[in-house]
Amino acid sequence: MKTSDFRSIVTNYKAVFFDAFGVLKNHKGIIPGVENTFDFLEENGIDYYILTNDASRSPEQLAVVYQRNGIAGITTDKIISSGMLARDWLGLKIKKGRVAYLGTTQSAHYIKTAGLDTLPISQLDLDDVDDIKCLVFLDDEGFDWNNDINKVINLLRKKNMTVIVANTDVNYPVNRTDIAVAIGGLSDMVEKILGKHFIRFGKPDAQMFMFAYEKACEKQPLNRDDILMVGDTLFTDIIGGNKFGMDTVLVLSGNTLPENAKMRIQSTGIIPTFICGSVASF
Amino acid sequence: MKTSDFRSIVTNYKAVFFDAFGVLKNHKGIIPGVENTFDFLEENGIDYYILTNDASRSPEQLAVVYQRNGIAGITTDKIISSGMLARDWLGLKIKKGRVAYLGTTQSAHYIKTAGLDTLPISQLDLDDVDDIKCLVFLDDEGFDWNNDINKVINLLRKKNMTVIVANTDVNYPVNRTDIAVAIGGLSDMVEKILGKHFIRFGKPDAQMFMFAYEKACEKQPLNRDDILMVGDTLFTDIIGGNKFGMDTVLVLSGNTLPENAKMRIQSTGIIPTFICGSVASF
Amino acid sequence: MKTSDFRSIVTNYKAVFFDAFGVLKNHKGIIPGVENTFDFLEENGIDYYILTNDASRSPEQLAVVYQRNGIAGITTDKIISSGMLARDWLGLKIKKGRVAYLGTTQSAHYIKTAGLDTLPISQLDLDDVDDIKCLVFLDDEGFDWNNDINKVINLLRKKNMTVIVANTDVNYPVNRTDIAVAIGGLSDMVEKILGKHFIRFGKPDAQMFMFAYEKACEKQPLNRDDILMVGDTLFTDIIGGNKFGMDTVLVLSGNTLPENAKMRIQSTGIIPTFICGSVASF
Amino acid sequence: MKTSDFRSIVTNYKAVFFDAFGVLKNHKGIIPGVENTFDFLEENGIDYYILTNDASRSPEQLAVVYQRNGIAGITTDKIISSGMLARDWLGLKIKKGRVAYLGTTQSAHYIKTAGLDTLPISQLDLDDVDDIKCLVFLDDEGFDWNNDINKVINLLRKKNMTVIVANTDVNYPVNRTDIAVAIGGLSDMVEKILGKHFIRFGKPDAQMFMFAYEKACEKQPLNRDDILMVGDTLFTDIIGGNKFGMDTVLVLSGNTLPENAKMRIQSTGIIPTFICGSVASF
Repeated sequence: MKTSDFRSIVTNYKAVFFDAFGVLKNHKGIIPGVENTFDFLEENGIDYYILTNDASRSPEQLAVVYQRNGIAGITTDKIISSGMLARDWLGLKIKKGRVAYLGTTQSAHYIKTAGLDTLPISQLDLDDVDDIKCLVFLDDEGFDWNNDINKVINLLRKKNMTVIVANTDVNYPVNRTDIAVAIGGLSDMVEKILGKHFIRFGKPDAQMFMFAYEKACEKQPLNRDDILMVGDTLFTDIIGGNKFGMDTVLVLSGNTLPENAKMRIQSTGIIPTFICGSVASF
Repeated sequence: MKTSDFRSIVTNYKAVFFDAFGVLKNHKGIIPGVENTFDFLEENGIDYYILTNDASRSPEQLAVVYQRNGIAGITTDKIISSGMLARDWLGLKIKKGRVAYLGTTQSAHYIKTAGLDTLPISQLDLDDVDDIKCLVFLDDEGFDWNNDINKVINLLRKKNMTVIVANTDVNYPVNRTDIAVAIGGLSDMVEKILGKHFIRFGKPDAQMFMFAYEKACEKQPLNRDDILMVGDTLFTDIIGGNKFGMDTVLVLSGNTLPENAKMRIQSTGIIPTFICGSVASF
Repeated sequence: MKTSDFRSIVTNYKAVFFDAFGVLKNHKGIIPGVENTFDFLEENGIDYYILTNDASRSPEQLAVVYQRNGIAGITTDKIISSGMLARDWLGLKIKKGRVAYLGTTQSAHYIKTAGLDTLPISQLDLDDVDDIKCLVFLDDEGFDWNNDINKVINLLRKKNMTVIVANTDVNYPVNRTDIAVAIGGLSDMVEKILGKHFIRFGKPDAQMFMFAYEKACEKQPLNRDDILMVGDTLFTDIIGGNKFGMDTVLVLSGNTLPENAKMRIQSTGIIPTFICGSVASF
Repeated sequence: MKTSDFRSIVTNYKAVFFDAFGVLKNHKGIIPGVENTFDFLEENGIDYYILTNDASRSPEQLAVVYQRNGIAGITTDKIISSGMLARDWLGLKIKKGRVAYLGTTQSAHYIKTAGLDTLPISQLDLDDVDDIKCLVFLDDEGFDWNNDINKVINLLRKKNMTVIVANTDVNYPVNRTDIAVAIGGLSDMVEKILGKHFIRFGKPDAQMFMFAYEKACEKQPLNRDDILMVGDTLFTDIIGGNKFGMDTVLVLSGNTLPENAKMRIQSTGIIPTFICGSVASF
């Protein structure tokens, strides 16, 4: 399996979309050498955005982590989170009323900044649901699974409403060896038990790439094949990028291990344009 | 849709298998008039068994509820629970070592009576998993979902072992209007996140019907078409009974509402031999 | 269930996206009275587009049917077919080489107009596959299922390549009572047997709505909530439109019958903004 | 990964269940050396049965292949095919009327020997379906997929009836490199398009193992853990055998390649009791 040097690839594109976890950072923090890559992009006038399936923190909070680690260029406007898609949708479709949610108070930021009233499921009274307009799955933390998952199920049996899921991921890494169920995994279970159909935001769905593409086009005119999508996961970053019409780079610094990459590309039929060890450079 | 009188049907059979919830009992307790039906079966020499997807309580505990309510004939040996299939399996396949579980201490009865040591996931040390031979999903109660579901996922990533699920149901009714996630629903989520394949016990799986059939044959010689399966759920009782070669009765006293029965039979293609309002008689 | 008059709704929007089958036409042809609705839209300066999951015929061929039936306004540029998305994708991602396909010669138009060489699977030599760059599922007609489906499976086992499906529908109506398997149904079977992951184009996927939205914005500035999506199918038109942030109308002239609409909205959780009997007017 | 010698394992059991393809035979015929293994079993008084997901040929036709190749002990009564389970079911549940089928005339043997009238779908008149009691998916050969699959779909839309699938396999090998869609794959597609629920016979379903177990017990008293299940496929032979409570041997002479075995056991969580290169001996 042939791997390429990231610098030699990226100079053929006008913009880059990066996945965050497994590409720019891991459980220890920012991957060493990534800061040099961003200097290189700045020097070469290549624009960049971070596309992350995350609704647990605001774009501001996501950006500050990079800035504290010496990557000054990753400002809030460079962050595209799946929570932002949920916020946009709420702004278009829910004009008034309360929005119930599962997640932390921090994650409810995405509902509040859409100008709507929020209600954590823990505080919901199942006998007073008339003005609940929508339910949002935001984050796996911040609530009691035993109680609140059953409460959500009975809310949706009592009142038919649109349900949105602000992060499609079913799990996420918590340290070098362990993972945790993500809100996308919990919402899949609830959806299956109810037999209903939820609306999901996040990679590999086209809406995430479209959102970033529109933002990138505000700076300079771009075709889709002017953009390079970089990710560590075949099922989200690479198939999503491929479908959107972009060239794609699979990096081996995260989810896809060097020893498995070839076999997984073969067995899934999800084929990146390029493979790189990492985006870090020294 | 033509419904039939249960008494006029059942006299054509030598034995009856009853589902429990929605057929013999509901959230209020034993359905009134059911005791008369069991008197009728006794008078006519028709044998009967209760087949229930339940591993939360022992057969003894399940039987006592009927006896307290005046149905003296439903003794422990008349109860076939999915937990008993799990216990049988453990006896055949796990000869020694500890068995980890999710559920109440009460539900762990099914592991203990197989002669094995039990370990609730809450007490598991992820750094000491060598002698854990098997994991069993027993009951949705008795553990902290936030912590213990993630712990189970990381146990299975650390050590490859066979996983069994002692109840296939994904939800169960808790009162007239509300339901709760059953252990089968939680195990489906874990299985999907891991991409592994668990072993499930309970209706509609053939092993449940076979277990009851073998037991019934100890009393009298029986063909499969000598037995009538009675249930309130198309997806477990009726399709399972049909597949096993028995005649089936759908009752409208539980999961399947009178106003939906015809449409659901049409849309699912799961066709009971008979439809009755209820098994109760006065 | 309250239904509304289509004319009173549509005047609140700047543009309308129509599904074709079940909305504008049925097995007998254009639904009578639909021509008056298009006159009404023209008079009121409301722009419109037809969004159809179809790769069997070119936009020109799709448009001519409406024009022959007296709806002069539906010209080629008003048609958005899923085949056009496939063509766009091929133009971005496949720069040279042959593209193999399942479908009629007519459907291969979408590959040819992307400037690529086409190869029907029937003419493929499994020993000469080096220059095959991509496989496209276009149409359920035009090939021998017994031979060519197996041939496709063995092509993909022999050479790993990206597969695209130019119509997500799994079936389509052929007359008042009967349906036929669509190419989306055949591709689902092949994908499942191989365990690979194909790229699909068509409603309810966001890319279809985005394509139409970008086209509509060329004429006038539009927000997503300036557009009304009209369809007869909850699972494609309505959930897709809802997710894209548009208001939606479910019409009862096609797939969703008046007697089932309320129950299906309840059971699926897919909730249209409005319900109309039909878009036809007299 | 430690592999064991088959002879040293098998002497600890009273009976063996063998999968056929990939274990006893492959595309070239009987695997050389397998005849010695059967001599060894005879000498040691170990009973054996062949369990095969196959409804294309009668048990007689399946047995004769082994006998012609010098394994005289594999007589008709040693063969357990999924077609036999379908025949048994028809005998229990369908008392009169015509049974429609997809498959060859040869495969219809399983319907005829249940004493029922057969009707190939090609000869079905969709306006005369009153006496059709059941539909059986038997074999992928013997019919025109383009016409007859659509005809089956419209039959089931017109008349609600129980559908049985006499082979759960979704594909089968046709030579060293190529595979073909099996009837189980076609039935999955039809089931999904209709949203109905079919009844399936074949490994890994417990009914197949129960059928063989009952037959084996007629010769000698047996516990389930007295039997060894030998197969080449984790998803049918091994998980099915494990669930039934038997010990299992994965052989590397078929579906599971030596270089992938360890990884596939790890990723699926389906764990055989033993791994052997092959059952052949010299």
